[in-house]
Amino acid sequence: MSYDLIIQNGTIATASDTYRADIGVKGGKIIAIAEHLEGAEEVIDASGKFVLPGGVEAHCHINEPPIGKVESADTFETGSRSAACGGNTTFIPFANQARGQSLLEAIEDYRKLAEGNSYIDYGFHLIVSDATPDVISRELPQAIQDGFTSFKVFMCYSDVMIDDRQILDVLGTARQEGALVMIHAENDHCISWLGSKLEELGQTEPKYYAKAHGHVVEREATHRAISLSEIVDTPILIVHVSSAEAMEQVRWAQSKGLNIHAETCPQYLYLKEEDFDRPGWEGSKFICSPPPREESNQGKLWQAIKNGVFDVVHSDHCPYSYEGDAGKQYHAHEGGHPHFKCIAPGVPGIEVRLPLMFNEMVSNGRLDINRFVALTSTNAAKLYGIYPQKGTIAIGSDADFALWDAEREVEIKHANLHDGCDYSPYEGTVVKGWPVRTILRGRTIWNDGEITGAPGEGGFLKRKLHMDPAWNAPSELVHRYV
Amino acid sequence: MSYDLIIQNGTIATASDTYRADIGVKGGKIIAIAEHLEGAEEVIDASGKFVLPGGVEAHCHINEPPIGKVESADTFETGSRSAACGGNTTFIPFANQARGQSLLEAIEDYRKLAEGNSYIDYGFHLIVSDATPDVISRELPQAIQDGFTSFKVFMCYSDVMIDDRQILDVLGTARQEGALVMIHAENDHCISWLGSKLEELGQTEPKYYAKAHGHVVEREATHRAISLSEIVDTPILIVHVSSAEAMEQVRWAQSKGLNIHAETCPQYLYLKEEDFDRPGWEGSKFICSPPPREESNQGKLWQAIKNGVFDVVHSDHCPYSYEGDAGKQYHAHEGGHPHFKCIAPGVPGIEVRLPLMFNEMVSNGRLDINRFVALTSTNAAKLYGIYPQKGTIAIGSDADFALWDAEREVEIKHANLHDGCDYSPYEGTVVKGWPVRTILRGRTIWNDGEITGAPGEGGFLKRKLHMDPAWNAPSELVHRYV
Amino acid sequence: MSYDLIIQNGTIATASDTYRADIGVKGGKIIAIAEHLEGAEEVIDASGKFVLPGGVEAHCHINEPPIGKVESADTFETGSRSAACGGNTTFIPFANQARGQSLLEAIEDYRKLAEGNSYIDYGFHLIVSDATPDVISRELPQAIQDGFTSFKVFMCYSDVMIDDRQILDVLGTARQEGALVMIHAENDHCISWLGSKLEELGQTEPKYYAKAHGHVVEREATHRAISLSEIVDTPILIVHVSSAEAMEQVRWAQSKGLNIHAETCPQYLYLKEEDFDRPGWEGSKFICSPPPREESNQGKLWQAIKNGVFDVVHSDHCPYSYEGDAGKQYHAHEGGHPHFKCIAPGVPGIEVRLPLMFNEMVSNGRLDINRFVALTSTNAAKLYGIYPQKGTIAIGSDADFALWDAEREVEIKHANLHDGCDYSPYEGTVVKGWPVRTILRGRTIWNDGEITGAPGEGGFLKRKLHMDPAWNAPSELVHRYV
Amino acid sequence: MSYDLIIQNGTIATASDTYRADIGVKGGKIIAIAEHLEGAEEVIDASGKFVLPGGVEAHCHINEPPIGKVESADTFETGSRSAACGGNTTFIPFANQARGQSLLEAIEDYRKLAEGNSYIDYGFHLIVSDATPDVISRELPQAIQDGFTSFKVFMCYSDVMIDDRQILDVLGTARQEGALVMIHAENDHCISWLGSKLEELGQTEPKYYAKAHGHVVEREATHRAISLSEIVDTPILIVHVSSAEAMEQVRWAQSKGLNIHAETCPQYLYLKEEDFDRPGWEGSKFICSPPPREESNQGKLWQAIKNGVFDVVHSDHCPYSYEGDAGKQYHAHEGGHPHFKCIAPGVPGIEVRLPLMFNEMVSNGRLDINRFVALTSTNAAKLYGIYPQKGTIAIGSDADFALWDAEREVEIKHANLHDGCDYSPYEGTVVKGWPVRTILRGRTIWNDGEITGAPGEGGFLKRKLHMDPAWNAPSELVHRYV
Repeated sequence: MSYDLIIQNGTIATASDTYRADIGVKGGKIIAIAEHLEGAEEVIDASGKFVLPGGVEAHCHINEPPIGKVESADTFETGSRSAACGGNTTFIPFANQARGQSLLEAIEDYRKLAEGNSYIDYGFHLIVSDATPDVISRELPQAIQDGFTSFKVFMCYSDVMIDDRQILDVLGTARQEGALVMIHAENDHCISWLGSKLEELGQTEPKYYAKAHGHVVEREATHRAISLSEIVDTPILIVHVSSAEAMEQVRWAQSKGLNIHAETCPQYLYLKEEDFDRPGWEGSKFICSPPPREESNQGKLWQAIKNGVFDVVHSDHCPYSYEGDAGKQYHAHEGGHPHFKCIAPGVPGIEVRLPLMFNEMVSNGRLDINRFVALTSTNAAKLYGIYPQKGTIAIGSDADFALWDAEREVEIKHANLHDGCDYSPYEGTVVKGWPVRTILRGRTIWNDGEITGAPGEGGFLKRKLHMDPAWNAPSELVHRYV
Repeated sequence: MSYDLIIQNGTIATASDTYRADIGVKGGKIIAIAEHLEGAEEVIDASGKFVLPGGVEAHCHINEPPIGKVESADTFETGSRSAACGGNTTFIPFANQARGQSLLEAIEDYRKLAEGNSYIDYGFHLIVSDATPDVISRELPQAIQDGFTSFKVFMCYSDVMIDDRQILDVLGTARQEGALVMIHAENDHCISWLGSKLEELGQTEPKYYAKAHGHVVEREATHRAISLSEIVDTPILIVHVSSAEAMEQVRWAQSKGLNIHAETCPQYLYLKEEDFDRPGWEGSKFICSPPPREESNQGKLWQAIKNGVFDVVHSDHCPYSYEGDAGKQYHAHEGGHPHFKCIAPGVPGIEVRLPLMFNEMVSNGRLDINRFVALTSTNAAKLYGIYPQKGTIAIGSDADFALWDAEREVEIKHANLHDGCDYSPYEGTVVKGWPVRTILRGRTIWNDGEITGAPGEGGFLKRKLHMDPAWNAPSELVHRYV
Repeated sequence: MSYDLIIQNGTIATASDTYRADIGVKGGKIIAIAEHLEGAEEVIDASGKFVLPGGVEAHCHINEPPIGKVESADTFETGSRSAACGGNTTFIPFANQARGQSLLEAIEDYRKLAEGNSYIDYGFHLIVSDATPDVISRELPQAIQDGFTSFKVFMCYSDVMIDDRQILDVLGTARQEGALVMIHAENDHCISWLGSKLEELGQTEPKYYAKAHGHVVEREATHRAISLSEIVDTPILIVHVSSAEAMEQVRWAQSKGLNIHAETCPQYLYLKEEDFDRPGWEGSKFICSPPPREESNQGKLWQAIKNGVFDVVHSDHCPYSYEGDAGKQYHAHEGGHPHFKCIAPGVPGIEVRLPLMFNEMVSNGRLDINRFVALTSTNAAKLYGIYPQKGTIAIGSDADFALWDAEREVEIKHANLHDGCDYSPYEGTVVKGWPVRTILRGRTIWNDGEITGAPGEGGFLKRKLHMDPAWNAPSELVHRYV
Repeated sequence: MSYDLIIQNGTIATASDTYRADIGVKGGKIIAIAEHLEGAEEVIDASGKFVLPGGVEAHCHINEPPIGKVESADTFETGSRSAACGGNTTFIPFANQARGQSLLEAIEDYRKLAEGNSYIDYGFHLIVSDATPDVISRELPQAIQDGFTSFKVFMCYSDVMIDDRQILDVLGTARQEGALVMIHAENDHCISWLGSKLEELGQTEPKYYAKAHGHVVEREATHRAISLSEIVDTPILIVHVSSAEAMEQVRWAQSKGLNIHAETCPQYLYLKEEDFDRPGWEGSKFICSPPPREESNQGKLWQAIKNGVFDVVHSDHCPYSYEGDAGKQYHAHEGGHPHFKCIAPGVPGIEVRLPLMFNEMVSNGRLDINRFVALTSTNAAKLYGIYPQKGTIAIGSDADFALWDAEREVEIKHANLHDGCDYSPYEGTVVKGWPVRTILRGRTIWNDGEITGAPGEGGFLKRKLHMDPAWNAPSELVHRYV
């Protein structure tokens, strides 16, 4: 037998190409792609299906520390299972440094949580919440060498945020080592000031969360993040851009020649401000940070996706259950009223990211299937240093695939999903196109309704540095500072 | 005698009009303007001269606290004298709240320094460096009622800066009371980080001051200041805009419908980066914050002046002597090397602001004399609540005039100026057009080389709120937050 | 008696100042402005009124040639009468060169039509529809010397339009002589192509007129006009800017440093697309070229007015009656259906321009009274070479005034207007602020409901060149071509 | 033998992927890609080489009609030979409709010129110079069905240009049939007016060609082309964008959501204004339309390439010899002076396009090899309807390859090139990276210095419609007209 596995008759799509061919897999790697292949232990007939690279989900929160009583609804087991059922073969959650904690220790903690529990391959971004000189000069470089080549900083949330000078320090190390910094861009002072004003006015319903996290709050921090990146002359990625105003800052910066990368999320393309108006406390199901915006904002983000402003679309899966003692509306625990300040921000979505995006990008024709692959798999693999092992279908790459039935229409119901949460903000949304089979390094882990993989089959990915020669190329258009 | 004073045969110019007429003054007020007037105790022949409203200098630092050993070179006496000799009849220095100090007490301190000492009329902007709840909710409203209707906040300088949330508080009070907030927009974290990096590289000459205060540093803070103003929905004025990048943020905000006002200064239109390269420590003579930029930046600022981006041009007169024990290069005191961190930032210029602007705007034809009057007198009077008493030539206004000889060519030499400083950064600059007589409320205080006024003739101005109905008018283009 | 006329106790407002004073007039000129004046043949008590410079209406079509059977509803007598009743003391209609006709002859024709018939002072802009070498090199320079210092070219309308090369020729002469070119910017090819397409689709109702004259049609021509001006390096004024997209081109050009001036009109600030949907053929009452836009466009234009994009607001009064054999819906004459191609484009409005603008700018607080004066009188006087004779209240200027009752509320009814037309597109609009008295060179010609002037009292104005030193000032930001 | 040809051990790069693999070819098609392949008649060892898709050169002028005595220096034989030696396997010259000529007849003429003469595969874009109703409604649709799915219109050059209305007609047909319109965007009126002015001033040296084709001339037409496309709501491609100002229009339009595609050329990235100053008439070697710009313009174009503004980079190879009776400086033929109006515009470059781009994009690290492949091969194949047959390395695609030695440094000398021209504007330029072998459908046609192909081996490509679902996707950001 030449191959462990042959996938026959499918239509392969990569970030640039679409063609019909058979794929031959051996030892978990793609070793042949040809008009016709024979001789395998296992043959999968992909007739009428798209064969795509497995999705890379590079923004998700798994097993993060509780917010008061509110606990993460997903462990590595449930989170990776849900991801697998949604067509992903790789995910990159965060290893979250607690303030006062060693960064390397935080890494160790999260590795332990993941080890033996994941259905799919995984790496970690670091969250740097304590940018001590030792972290900046010793721990971060060490972590990068160990394969943690991207890290996130927060411009808001008092328990994790660092200030501009500390961000510059982090960027300085990133530049020196070639790592990538992800930035959560919202102005903490503004959020808190607006929150107080709204509270004084008695405006405490969930929808005021969005008011306290208004467009300007995000736009300002985005401009600031861009400026910090410009000063240090090192690329950044602005995560979860939600506001068209923030997006315009990114496009402006890109036009100037700055290496600003950006991500948006399904919640900003499907959910909207009006969702907060659901009766009772149900609006809190849609609260994440930054929040979904008014409907007209969506079209502008779609346009920006088309224009190349965004490199990636990830779920920012941040699972808090709605019901129960550990539910996200934590003020309710003690019998209080709904209050926007007492909602753990975050929405689940790791399993439906790909179908939601396939539906609009491919089925509704906003882009094409190659752009879909680029935005949901290939670009992330390149940005986060796991390409070409992950993110494409090419000789030598891992045999990670998602088989898609482009014609299948599915109504999203949380009852059918596989995460640890108790609701989906997309409940009732009907999408066309569904990942019917997920294959990790040649092994089928999800097969049309049946979970065939197992926890622990997913392995740790020691990531390389990002790759983009343009990051080092001179731009004649910007001032250089350092 | 119908009039105390008649000014005959001059060419009057206001912010909109230019015409030949006589002006009749009584009791320090303009009571008649006519083709021909007769019957006065004093008649001034203004043939061949422009008769302009006295200049309003609304950005100058007088008698401010020392920076280490470096002392302000100007008292109210020398500062106001220099202003008078430069065609100004009003100035508005700052009353600087020390951290921990009561704002009302700071006002008292400065009023005492000024009382009996000024050649020209004066008011005070407040510098809010300690935005305690009491300052925000009691002292500021009280001060506004007392005629201190504008105040400045700093986004840099550790001893005076307040943070974004505090700025929002200040803006909140300004909005409630109808006052105007002036913002020094540079990002302190960036300045300090860049300063450290430059120091590590051994780049300590004066010119590196400009590197540590680069374009981005100013642009970022300008965008942030605009955003804070947008959130509170109250006008601000960005002082001393130096970078074309910051200016573009202002124009962008104005296009969006935000009430962003802006000031620039002669140093950004005449001085340039290369000036820092003077031999020895002489470069420090040109250091102010933000610093003069590369030459190509000047054309962009001029264009913005023409386009209406800027409302006012003031001197930001901040006088530190170059020589001596209290000189601005304070590191030198102890025999050290020049070091950009050890230079008291600020340049003198209160006496030459008007000639420098007249030269470019009027003599070199960049604008016209009406725009010159608007930018150097009328607009400031309106913005700072002293119009129509000050800032124009109209019935009922104070008889404050500057008589200009548009043909006189003068080479600027500090030896001929009247401030308390020991140098001028404009030494050697030749300008065409010079204020040959200054008249305060009908009394000549400067007459072609001779000081005829006296300290104490200038009085305190209890200022009203700014006036601009557009500030209250709805803009359909912006999100509203509060 | 020292004065022919004293206007007492009014509140004078100019483009920059507002103050209480008496005005003394002699020989039709303002000779004194003072706290108190005495000794006049006539004294007008202006207590509680604003005394403003008479309006300058610099865009109106009077006695222009018929379009088929559709005739201009206004002669110089009715047009100037209506203007006078609306607070104007000067107007500048067009002298329209017919193709094949000598330009100087056209001037003669129009001067004859005006002579002895106008209630107010007048000049003429020229419409250059036949840019022959003789017109370019001899007639235009001659006309400019004769006081016709501005001329208009059309980028659409087959009987008057000239092509880009001819516009460049006209601009070349304008530059050489210092004259000002006004441009009607709509792309004729696009209008005609869209018109044919709409016709093919059977979409012929009045509202499709707006479709054929869509935003892009105007924006494109505006960009082109700007480009032609840039090539020749001479200022232009884009008339009747209606689309926010076109306005943005103007602002972009101004930011670049180009001397682009712009006008908008009340119809683009008050009327809207929905007006075309009136039952029957009534939609045609609102058709002008370019057409009123959707309502959201209005806010953007107001913002641009506030931002200084526009120099002037004129009526573009183009009076065609609605009813009758010569009515504007000319297709109807022969019993046809309504058809957007068969409507003479133009709306009447010379009498209500000032009240409509006063209402929004002053009463509704969008700007202030000084900006109102600037936009409706002073700026036009400066742009069109009749300042300081016209456009302000200053010693030596013509004693042209409009007295305004800022509190009077008026519902606009055509029955109360004084033009030769049979409808007003603003019928029913309620405005606050009304010009209750108009004074031309010291003579009251309109007094609160009564016409007291007479045809022929208005005289011809030989205009000087425009004045704006900035037009000759170098901009460092643009390429120079010639 | 399983394969006709195996290419071993090369590093394959496509528009998205880079990996090491063997390629198996049979019947001129790629039938297998694998870690290791065996069993072929011919084996090529590509160790140490990049194996890229053959270049697609989609903008070149071959055998076009003479301009006076100046003749095209290239036939299909020489042009395709030169292309082949430069790593291209497909080219798409123009079939140029003479005014008055049937379009289908023009196609026939060009097909005859090409048949049996080309070394590489070819298609034709049409040049529509006579947009008669028959051409619009019958011939164009027929031509599209016959595989001529893209056509070019000119906004300048009197013998080929069509007016805006005709362009709208052409765009209308393109929209209906799904074809792509390419636009040469320069304003003819401006060129001719500027030309006359320069001539009047005696400024006739070659460098004044660039003055007559200044930035604004191109920017204006680009804005207009965009506007026409917006009206018809159909994509266009702006060819040979040279000016950063024109590029900014394209980016602005893309941001608005318009489907504007753009091409730039090596001459705008390597050549510059100063090249016109070569002694004697030599400046004419660099004249093309639009012309190379000042050096600072290049950086802005590079930035735009990086930003995704441009889809493709082609040579616009337009070969006129410099010397001889048919040389491009045709005024010289009769012994005249150099005169910019008498130079046939166009530069040769079909053979060096790929090396020039490889050098900057890959060797100098401005982009990466995948973007190089996209910009020079894949994107063109997709835009012009020959993908996936051409433009990639994938199963089922034609076995068209270029083998690149990324380390080889070559000094460009025309003596070593293979076109029919007598000079290269890039003479002396040193590049790193060279196409050492070209393979057309499995047959080596160029092998490191030796031409191994033959005229006639290249075949005609009946092209499909362009593919880009985004072209049909709704943009919420633009007005729709038709």
